[in-house]
Amino acid sequence: MYPLLLLPLLLLSSPIEASVNDFCVADLSSSDTPSGYPCLNPSNVTASDFVFTGLAKPGTINPLIKAAVNPAFVTQFPGVNGQGISVIRLDILAGGVVPLHTHPGATELLVVTQGCITAGFISSSANTVYYETLGKGDVMVFPQGLLHFQINAGGVTAVGFATFNSPNPGLQLTAFALFANSFPSALLEKTTFLDDAQVQKLKGVLGGTG
Amino acid sequence: MYPLLLLPLLLLSSPIEASVNDFCVADLSSSDTPSGYPCLNPSNVTASDFVFTGLAKPGTINPLIKAAVNPAFVTQFPGVNGQGISVIRLDILAGGVVPLHTHPGATELLVVTQGCITAGFISSSANTVYYETLGKGDVMVFPQGLLHFQINAGGVTAVGFATFNSPNPGLQLTAFALFANSFPSALLEKTTFLDDAQVQKLKGVLGGTG
Amino acid sequence: MYPLLLLPLLLLSSPIEASVNDFCVADLSSSDTPSGYPCLNPSNVTASDFVFTGLAKPGTINPLIKAAVNPAFVTQFPGVNGQGISVIRLDILAGGVVPLHTHPGATELLVVTQGCITAGFISSSANTVYYETLGKGDVMVFPQGLLHFQINAGGVTAVGFATFNSPNPGLQLTAFALFANSFPSALLEKTTFLDDAQVQKLKGVLGGTG
Amino acid sequence: MYPLLLLPLLLLSSPIEASVNDFCVADLSSSDTPSGYPCLNPSNVTASDFVFTGLAKPGTINPLIKAAVNPAFVTQFPGVNGQGISVIRLDILAGGVVPLHTHPGATELLVVTQGCITAGFISSSANTVYYETLGKGDVMVFPQGLLHFQINAGGVTAVGFATFNSPNPGLQLTAFALFANSFPSALLEKTTFLDDAQVQKLKGVLGGTG
Amino acid sequence: MYPLLLLPLLLLSSPIEASVNDFCVADLSSSDTPSGYPCLNPSNVTASDFVFTGLAKPGTINPLIKAAVNPAFVTQFPGVNGQGISVIRLDILAGGVVPLHTHPGATELLVVTQGCITAGFISSSANTVYYETLGKGDVMVFPQGLLHFQINAGGVTAVGFATFNSPNPGLQLTAFALFANSFPSALLEKTTFLDDAQVQKLKGVLGGTG
Amino acid sequence: MYPLLLLPLLLLSSPIEASVNDFCVADLSSSDTPSGYPCLNPSNVTASDFVFTGLAKPGTINPLIKAAVNPAFVTQFPGVNGQGISVIRLDILAGGVVPLHTHPGATELLVVTQGCITAGFISSSANTVYYETLGKGDVMVFPQGLLHFQINAGGVTAVGFATFNSPNPGLQLTAFALFANSFPSALLEKTTFLDDAQVQKLKGVLGGTG
Repeated sequence: MYPLLLLPLLLLSSPIEASVNDFCVADLSSSDTPSGYPCLNPSNVTASDFVFTGLAKPGTINPLIKAAVNPAFVTQFPGVNGQGISVIRLDILAGGVVPLHTHPGATELLVVTQGCITAGFISSSANTVYYETLGKGDVMVFPQGLLHFQINAGGVTAVGFATFNSPNPGLQLTAFALFANSFPSALLEKTTFLDDAQVQKLKGVLGGTG
Repeated sequence: MYPLLLLPLLLLSSPIEASVNDFCVADLSSSDTPSGYPCLNPSNVTASDFVFTGLAKPGTINPLIKAAVNPAFVTQFPGVNGQGISVIRLDILAGGVVPLHTHPGATELLVVTQGCITAGFISSSANTVYYETLGKGDVMVFPQGLLHFQINAGGVTAVGFATFNSPNPGLQLTAFALFANSFPSALLEKTTFLDDAQVQKLKGVLGGTG
Repeated sequence: MYPLLLLPLLLLSSPIEASVNDFCVADLSSSDTPSGYPCLNPSNVTASDFVFTGLAKPGTINPLIKAAVNPAFVTQFPGVNGQGISVIRLDILAGGVVPLHTHPGATELLVVTQGCITAGFISSSANTVYYETLGKGDVMVFPQGLLHFQINAGGVTAVGFATFNSPNPGLQLTAFALFANSFPSALLEKTTFLDDAQVQKLKGVLGGTG
Repeated sequence: MYPLLLLPLLLLSSPIEASVNDFCVADLSSSDTPSGYPCLNPSNVTASDFVFTGLAKPGTINPLIKAAVNPAFVTQFPGVNGQGISVIRLDILAGGVVPLHTHPGATELLVVTQGCITAGFISSSANTVYYETLGKGDVMVFPQGLLHFQINAGGVTAVGFATFNSPNPGLQLTAFALFANSFPSALLEKTTFLDDAQVQKLKGVLGGTG
Repeated sequence: MYPLLLLPLLLLSSPIEASVNDFCVADLSSSDTPSGYPCLNPSNVTASDFVFTGLAKPGTINPLIKAAVNPAFVTQFPGVNGQGISVIRLDILAGGVVPLHTHPGATELLVVTQGCITAGFISSSANTVYYETLGKGDVMVFPQGLLHFQINAGGVTAVGFATFNSPNPGLQLTAFALFANSFPSALLEKTTFLDDAQVQKLKGVLGGTG
Repeated sequence: MYPLLLLPLLLLSSPIEASVNDFCVADLSSSDTPSGYPCLNPSNVTASDFVFTGLAKPGTINPLIKAAVNPAFVTQFPGVNGQGISVIRLDILAGGVVPLHTHPGATELLVVTQGCITAGFISSSANTVYYETLGKGDVMVFPQGLLHFQINAGGVTAVGFATFNSPNPGLQLTAFALFANSFPSALLEKTTFLDDAQVQKLKGVLGGTG
């Protein structure tokens, strides 16, 4: 039906370079832009740029919360640059917790792969708390920007993978945002209603000053 | 140069209805969608649909915070539906405060029109606090989804107008999200590190239970 | 510091309804729109609307491919409506495969939770094939709209969870798009260079006609 | 290699309805939303919903401008709903013109298919006029929202097809926006610097009042 | 409940750099991109990068229009880069006007803070003029890309702040786009229907040639 | 009514540089970013940057498919950078075809300007084939990311212009993605169900190996 010739690929009258709309592996040595990092030259990109192996094991457990949060955001996984997606691995020991936090830049979807996790979020304005206990294989979605938490609900280590619809969703842990920096105590107390004793105690625990 | 005739408008071979891309005044009686409310029939829309007079005076001062937050979001101002913009008027009495909060859905830009306001936000991850005292005519931008606050820095009532790049940016006040609902105390304490005494006290103040 | 009164929540001069920007659980009985389904009334929404339990077990294995694809897209999981995210569970038996396919509407991120999967995608224009063999805990990203595949690389069932940055990413399996419908054979052969014998054979396998 | 059986399509453990992310043919009987019209039931959609034949011939020439603008926007061509694209056919007689106008909602790309057209746009702020004379097969892009025009540059009818990256880009013809409505003359003159004599003359030509 | 230790912030198994999704203060010395300027190194950013004091006083009044437009777009206020928001201060003397104009890139929301302003916009296609007189505290929204104007409606200087849902909305003043450049008169007259006498007169006033 | 003075353009209290939101002609010598190439300095941009003349004639016909695809994507036409639009010219000889393909990044709208073209696309999931024969002036829309094709339906050369709502939509020709690269045959056969004989034959035709 057609000539069995080895034709050069001249389908197009002028060659189209590899479309960077396909992908844009981050050149982390360049400045970021509002849409993401500039792209590495596609000719220098290989399959391993699209694979991240760092979530194969748990991260280092933080004894304060008895949990580890192991991210594959753009700075760890340049292949997700411009792709609108990224992932984190959570390991929560028995008695452990991922404290109340938000992701300013993205929606989160959690899949539990081991153990039991009680997870929930709080709506804005109405402040309704939506929470449930999830078992292996269960999925929960946490709308963008809302306060949410995960806590081990059983006696064994719980593990989950949380994905985000952004390569760099951000992570604002409320306790750390309040107590782990140099937020002046007086200002903090007026803007949160917290007592000074509470503030000083938690600044002490989390390394804050001011 | 052209016939001085009164021509019907037949520039287009077939009539184009008023382009709803121009505007889409919210039909609040219908269900919302992810992009906003369905549109009222453009034929029924008048100039007053694009004007909001409710910010001409301060709102009702809440004695707890000695401030009033008077919104013109889509549910108050249907004309902003689908327009990517909305506004709030802030009145903060001497000694008053708009407590720490986020807008999950939008960036905020504040213009101070009277008095002095100390305002700031906290970055995610690094938890850096960026704050300054603003006078009349000063402008501050608060990036989307990040914790921020405003507090009267002077001896007279401070007034400002805060606009958002969303018709419905949301408002999550941290203290209310923690203490004004039925968030179970034990869960709250584990996910925030707060002491039970503090939690009970503030649930008492803000009307929370659990 | 503040009056210990039980104050009604009058922070805002006029009440703000629960911000549907928080979430928009799909009303599947209504027509879809380009941005997603209309929202259920937030007052009728509970925590379980944000949880999906259907991925706790494998789906039904299709003997043709020895794999099961178990989706939690918006039509299964209305809570992801308007949230820019969804997920699928893959179970691939030894010798099984998820055939070459695209997701027209989204980027995919796969996390392998059991076994070994060889996965890859093909770039447009340059047609470069990027593939690797992934083990437990490994992650791969597949850029939006590009042909890709997963195949069991070991001797045990492989399991993974693939998330998408869309509540309804679509799934176009190349073989089914060609051979499982009524695409007229002559047209199919001219537009793919495939031999008629091949076309008839696979139409027979996949239930196509024409 | 595989059983030559006629298998029902059970690749997915639960059926996925036709993904409306594929398309969303407009239900023009329903209210519009900020993202477009609600979708017709995909089961009722046929190939002809994605085809528009109305541009096969010129539209009706408007003697004032000696041109016809024949649109295939969403209200004429429901298949483009939610697709981010639409098209117009332009026929400009010798001596004719498409007067200065903007498309508030989209970028325009013009392909000349017959004759010669002088086309150009004006940048904002710097007010630079960028214009050239285009022949058959030439292409020009007009950035979103900027004033632009097309005028026949030869002695024969010029024809072109202009596409837009919106299903409903809007069309604001400056002369008509000023003189074809009931814009009060005094207000018009103060906001444009035009003389009253000019204003009255053109209101007369274009059917305006006030 | 937890060890009162000063723990380094090791919540995450690998450190996350300050998320540039938080902010992206413009590096104006670099080339712009379609999404905005590249970002300054977050470590070099301070609170003052998010504050703009230039709107505290009126800008220089232009005697032609008896008004001043004082912008805080990205080139004046690099902190709004990538934030989807910016602002302008308007001061209109008695008898003054902000002439008919568009913002190709954004919706505008005006808050009047002093005096009275008659403001309005014109819809596309139907060319309906929507206008009202606004007093102190009143708000009006002007949909993206549509012609609009503001004119002092009282006897004292009127002041307002107009915000936009873009860091760089653009400003195309119709009279200047027509008469303040080198737009060839013949071409201008054919594309606007204006008389040559009118065109020459206004080119003279606004500095145009051609 | 106004002083006939030649006023410098001081409407704005501080000068606004040419708004790059107007346009962002691609600096192809710089790295791409997820939103497009960095912009050339607007001062160096002329009208010819917005005009592309390369589609005035057919491209080089590829004898394999008896068709030419002549693109004006961003790499050929830098003026479309950041503009959300681009175009291709198709020339299909009698008996020729544009084989089955997708555009991962965009919707396509085809206008037939000569001859007859049978064109169609295949929906995802349901795999419905929507196709019709188009004559001169007919228009068809192909939703983003879905498989589609065009084939000459008459006895003369057919010509069309296909526009896209992206400056770089990508082009993934199925046959080339399968047979024109080094996709290992065994892997290809398992993921497509194709017979080895068919695979080897088409690798031979299209220059593939492996």
